[in-house]
Amino acid sequence: MQRSLEEYISLIENKLSEYNPVRDNPQVKIYEAMNYSLGAGGKRLRPILLLEFCRIFGGREEDAMPFACALEMIHTYSLIHDDLPAMDNDELRRGKPTNHIVFGEAAAILAGDALLTKAFEICSKPSGCSAERQIRAINMLASFSGTDGMVGGQVVDLESENKDISMDTLRYMHSLKTGALIKAACMIGAVIGGADESGTEAAGMFAENLGIAFQIRDDILDVTGSEEELGKKTGSDEKLKKNTYVTFLGVKKSQELCREYSDKALKALDDIDSDTEFLAHMVGKLVDRNS
Amino acid sequence: MQRSLEEYISLIENKLSEYNPVRDNPQVKIYEAMNYSLGAGGKRLRPILLLEFCRIFGGREEDAMPFACALEMIHTYSLIHDDLPAMDNDELRRGKPTNHIVFGEAAAILAGDALLTKAFEICSKPSGCSAERQIRAINMLASFSGTDGMVGGQVVDLESENKDISMDTLRYMHSLKTGALIKAACMIGAVIGGADESGTEAAGMFAENLGIAFQIRDDILDVTGSEEELGKKTGSDEKLKKNTYVTFLGVKKSQELCREYSDKALKALDDIDSDTEFLAHMVGKLVDRNS
Repeated sequence: MQRSLEEYISLIENKLSEYNPVRDNPQVKIYEAMNYSLGAGGKRLRPILLLEFCRIFGGREEDAMPFACALEMIHTYSLIHDDLPAMDNDELRRGKPTNHIVFGEAAAILAGDALLTKAFEICSKPSGCSAERQIRAINMLASFSGTDGMVGGQVVDLESENKDISMDTLRYMHSLKTGALIKAACMIGAVIGGADESGTEAAGMFAENLGIAFQIRDDILDVTGSEEELGKKTGSDEKLKKNTYVTFLGVKKSQELCREYSDKALKALDDIDSDTEFLAHMVGKLVDRNS
Repeated sequence: MQRSLEEYISLIENKLSEYNPVRDNPQVKIYEAMNYSLGAGGKRLRPILLLEFCRIFGGREEDAMPFACALEMIHTYSLIHDDLPAMDNDELRRGKPTNHIVFGEAAAILAGDALLTKAFEICSKPSGCSAERQIRAINMLASFSGTDGMVGGQVVDLESENKDISMDTLRYMHSLKTGALIKAACMIGAVIGGADESGTEAAGMFAENLGIAFQIRDDILDVTGSEEELGKKTGSDEKLKKNTYVTFLGVKKSQELCREYSDKALKALDDIDSDTEFLAHMVGKLVDRNS
C-alpha cells in the first residue's frame, strides 16, 4: 500500500518509541537520553527511503520496519556523538538543546553507544523475513555504518578541519559521512523487499546521487537558510572553517550541481520496474527544502 | 581439539588484526586507533570462553571465531569510552597510554563507535553456521551489550558515583557491567556449538557466578595489587569514591565471597556433559590472578 509522507513519519515515530520502552530500573536515565534524541524529530529520511524501497520491490512493511528504525537509531547516535564537546561542540540540534547539554557528556556518550547497539538488537529479532535475507541486511547495515562508511566519513571530516582539501576529498568524505546511510536505506529496503541484484544496484545508484544532492543542499542552507527554520545555528561551517560545496563553488554553482545530481537520481529510478512516483516526489522535496 | 590458553590467545590476536586491516585511505587513522587498543593485550577472557564453550558442545572453531573477536571488539570499545575524560578519565590502561591520550578525544570516541560497528559486521558475514543460529547469536550479542546489559551497567555505575548505594545495587550494577559480556561469551559459544536449552542455561549459570567472582577479585586487586603487575593505577576506586565489594565487606570477607562464587561456577560445570577441565582450570586462574 502506498503511504503518504505523513503516514510514514507517524508509523516510524510510533515504532521508535515502541522499540525503546522506558523501564523502571536503576539505568532508567539511559532510556530517557535515547528517547530524547530519537524523539527530537527530523525528516526521517532514511527510514522512509528504506520502507518505500521495500514496498516498490514487493516486500512487507513489517519485515522492513526493524531495519528502518535501526537505521534511524544509527543516524541519531551519530548526531549525538557528533555534537559532543570533543567533536563539533554543538549546543543546539533541531531547535532543542543537544543530548549532552541535557543529560551530561558521559550519559550522551553512553546513549549513543546504546542506540547503536539497540539498532542491531532490533533487526536481529526473529522476523517473517528469511534468516538469509535478514543476515545480509544486517551485514549491509554494519558495513555502511562503520570505518568504510559513516564513521570513516566522520574521521575524514575530523582530519580535514582547518586544512585545505581537494574537492575530490570533499566528495569522498560526504560519500561516506552522509552518503553511506542513505545508500544503506535504499539498498537494505531493496534487499528486504526481495529485489534482484540489478534492482539493488539501481537502488544504490539512486541513493548515491540523492546523497550528493542532499549534501550540497545542506551546505547551501548553512549559508542561506534561516536559523528558525533549520532549528540550528547557520554559518557554523564558515565559523569552523569547514570545507563545503559552497566554499568550493559558491552558492550559484552549488545550486546547479545539486540540480544535476538530483536529475541523475531521478534517472536511476527509470531502471526500476515499479511505481517510483513517491521517490521522485521526495527527491524534489529534498532538493527544494528550506530546513 | 583442546587448545591451550596460549594457543587460544595467539589465534584470537591473529584473527583480531586480520579482521581490521589497515587500509591506505583518508580515514587510515581510525584503523590505527582501533588496532592500538585491540592489540593492547589483556587476558582475552571473553573470546577464550566463547571458543571453549563452542568446543565443548561440539561446534566448529571457525564458526565461533567471528563472535569471539566481535565480543573482544565490544569489550575493547567499552574500555576506550570508559577511559574518556568525560567518563573515568584514565590515562593508563594495560600499562599503555589510553586511546584518547594517543589519538585525541574525538578519534577515541569514533574508534569506539567503529569497533562496536565492526563487531556486528564480522559476525553477520556468511558463515558455515546456519543463518538461524547466527541470527540468534547476533541478537544475544546485542542484548548483552546494550541498555539491559553492559551499557546499562555503565549507566548505573555513573549514577552511583559519590553516592551511598546498597550492596544489592552494587551486585546489580556488576551483573550488567562486567557480568553481561561474560554471560554473552559462554552462552553464545554454547549456541554456536549447538547446545540445547539446558546446556545453554548451564553455560549462563557458570558465567553468572564466574562474573561475580571475577569482579570481586578485581575490586580486591585495586586495593592489594601492584601497579606494575596490573598495568594501571591502583587505589583508583577509593580515589573516585567508587562503591566496591571491598568497601562493603573489607578484603578478607571479599576473598571468602570470591571463593564462594567460584565454587558455584565450578558446580555449574557439573551439569554439562562434556570435558570441562579447561574451564575449571580457568576459574582457578582467574580467582588467584594478580593482574
